[in-house]
Amino acid sequence: MENHVVIMAGGIGSRFWPMSTPERPKQFLDVLGCGRTLIQMTVDRFLPLCPIERVWVVTSEAYRDIVREQLPQLPPENILLEPASRNTAPCIALACWKIRAAHPAANVVVSPADALVLDSGEYRRVISLALDFTADSDAIVTMGIKPSRPETGYGYIDAEGEGEIRHVRAFREKPSPETAGRYFREGHYLWNAGIFVWNIDTITSAIRQYAPQIASIMDTLAPYFHTAQEAERTRRLFPLCEKISIDYAVMEKSSSVYTVPSDFGWSDLGTWGSLRANSEKDTDGNALSGSPEVKVYDCEGCVVRVSTLKKVVLEGLKDYIVAEKDGTLMVCRLSEEQRIKDFEK
Amino acid sequence: MENHVVIMAGGIGSRFWPMSTPERPKQFLDVLGCGRTLIQMTVDRFLPLCPIERVWVVTSEAYRDIVREQLPQLPPENILLEPASRNTAPCIALACWKIRAAHPAANVVVSPADALVLDSGEYRRVISLALDFTADSDAIVTMGIKPSRPETGYGYIDAEGEGEIRHVRAFREKPSPETAGRYFREGHYLWNAGIFVWNIDTITSAIRQYAPQIASIMDTLAPYFHTAQEAERTRRLFPLCEKISIDYAVMEKSSSVYTVPSDFGWSDLGTWGSLRANSEKDTDGNALSGSPEVKVYDCEGCVVRVSTLKKVVLEGLKDYIVAEKDGTLMVCRLSEEQRIKDFEK
Repeated sequence: MENHVVIMAGGIGSRFWPMSTPERPKQFLDVLGCGRTLIQMTVDRFLPLCPIERVWVVTSEAYRDIVREQLPQLPPENILLEPASRNTAPCIALACWKIRAAHPAANVVVSPADALVLDSGEYRRVISLALDFTADSDAIVTMGIKPSRPETGYGYIDAEGEGEIRHVRAFREKPSPETAGRYFREGHYLWNAGIFVWNIDTITSAIRQYAPQIASIMDTLAPYFHTAQEAERTRRLFPLCEKISIDYAVMEKSSSVYTVPSDFGWSDLGTWGSLRANSEKDTDGNALSGSPEVKVYDCEGCVVRVSTLKKVVLEGLKDYIVAEKDGTLMVCRLSEEQRIKDFEK
Repeated sequence: MENHVVIMAGGIGSRFWPMSTPERPKQFLDVLGCGRTLIQMTVDRFLPLCPIERVWVVTSEAYRDIVREQLPQLPPENILLEPASRNTAPCIALACWKIRAAHPAANVVVSPADALVLDSGEYRRVISLALDFTADSDAIVTMGIKPSRPETGYGYIDAEGEGEIRHVRAFREKPSPETAGRYFREGHYLWNAGIFVWNIDTITSAIRQYAPQIASIMDTLAPYFHTAQEAERTRRLFPLCEKISIDYAVMEKSSSVYTVPSDFGWSDLGTWGSLRANSEKDTDGNALSGSPEVKVYDCEGCVVRVSTLKKVVLEGLKDYIVAEKDGTLMVCRLSEEQRIKDFEK
């Protein structure tokens, strides 16, 4: 079988406002200040496993030009455009039906474009393990992250058994602090990272079985994939798909779901706090963007991300976010970052 | 006698960095966000006492265009350019020698361009009183501000006697907190605001007597004032003047110095704290500039002055300065504003 990678890059995530905006969401930003955007880092990570010709990016029309600009090596026909946002099940179905039309022996990894992986070598090791497993089985694999804290912000996978590949007993919603503490202590719960591995027959069959409405739309589209009519037909039919996540549509219904308990330094970078945690910091714990010049005096634990400003001097700030993009400045305590969604209005 | 006003506008004050810069110092800024710059407010204040044709602005070559732009009614020949910064004594001598050459009956007020006066009516009342007094005497008047607190940041005037015009016994340097407390309690000490009133014969004679080096340079220049050669001769000779303040050169030496104890809502706006105190504030004590849009959440006692930024959202800041100019942003506690001079470097 041949490896393929599907990268889901349609999100408009607003938690990093004003650094991220609907015009240029998080996956297209160099949020770590390392010189590569999250989608670039995501593609880079897979290249030793899969040539760029077999990397597929699903995004919305609004982001096509950004994807082409940030991934110049990617064949333009590998960019799939969702005419409307329909959550992950239709997104994954679209990519997998299209891949199957030209590559019936595909073995597929699906990954979000905007997550962080610190240990790419370990990442590829466990992904390879999963690919080997799905190459000759009808297993659905969802990568599981070994929890490092009793996090309440993630969904959990309840895994059973021993070894590197374990059967998934159940999925659990984001828990209360008490439940998260119990999950953390019991040891067989893993974070659900939304990274999936399966072969192309497995996933299309599973969608056909558990989400027949989506499968039937994809079957109607299938004759047009890789033809001149693909775009127009997709634009007309895709929005008819029900809006549902792959977790609800398939994962929670199938009994042949497996996980690989992993530890590759993963973060979904879903909060400014996690961005700070994963960024390079000075001796006072300030995560400063490399450019422009940022000088700090008596500051601790701050995250600074600016774009238009040329020079920044901060004094006496402890645990603050200082973010600027295109002339919009936000200064906010990290402890209050959940309020940011209100600031945008 | 006819009233004249000399406005000293050559300062490069750096305490409001980055709002003020050497390219556009404080006197040329709308620091209060009221739509008028400090030099415009200063000129406005005098117009009921003195027509614009008898207002003289002394500044440096670098600021000539800003003065012309901000004071379009001012006759261009009333802008005097100091080719070098030589403190207030040569500045005042230049203006007064030039005025005397064309207006031997001038009665003169000298004022800095960058101070604030909240009660312009009361200001004009006491200035008129001083002008009446100097019109037919050889008195040197320095306006005295009745202290509202034991301020250690100003020089003091020790006045004797009663009534609206009092003899000055002595000048006092910026005091220690203890001395400032005593000055405040004793009641006969006034803040030295650097606003002077005298007739043209009095000041030129006093400079001739107490600062003969400066007077002799001015005498050499005098034949060229109001001629085509004025600029070139000034450029050559003015820098030869010793660098000395009018206080040291004249005021502290003369025995005929008087003051008018005044209460016209004066501030030299020498600190961000004084700027905050004199600005319009929201119900939480935040002094926000009118434009661009500044939104505050759980903020108290902040001063915000931005220029390039289009939108500002602040959360959880108490007693901070947030200032931005041309892409340079500073966030600093008001209590630490004395450190700002180090931030510029």
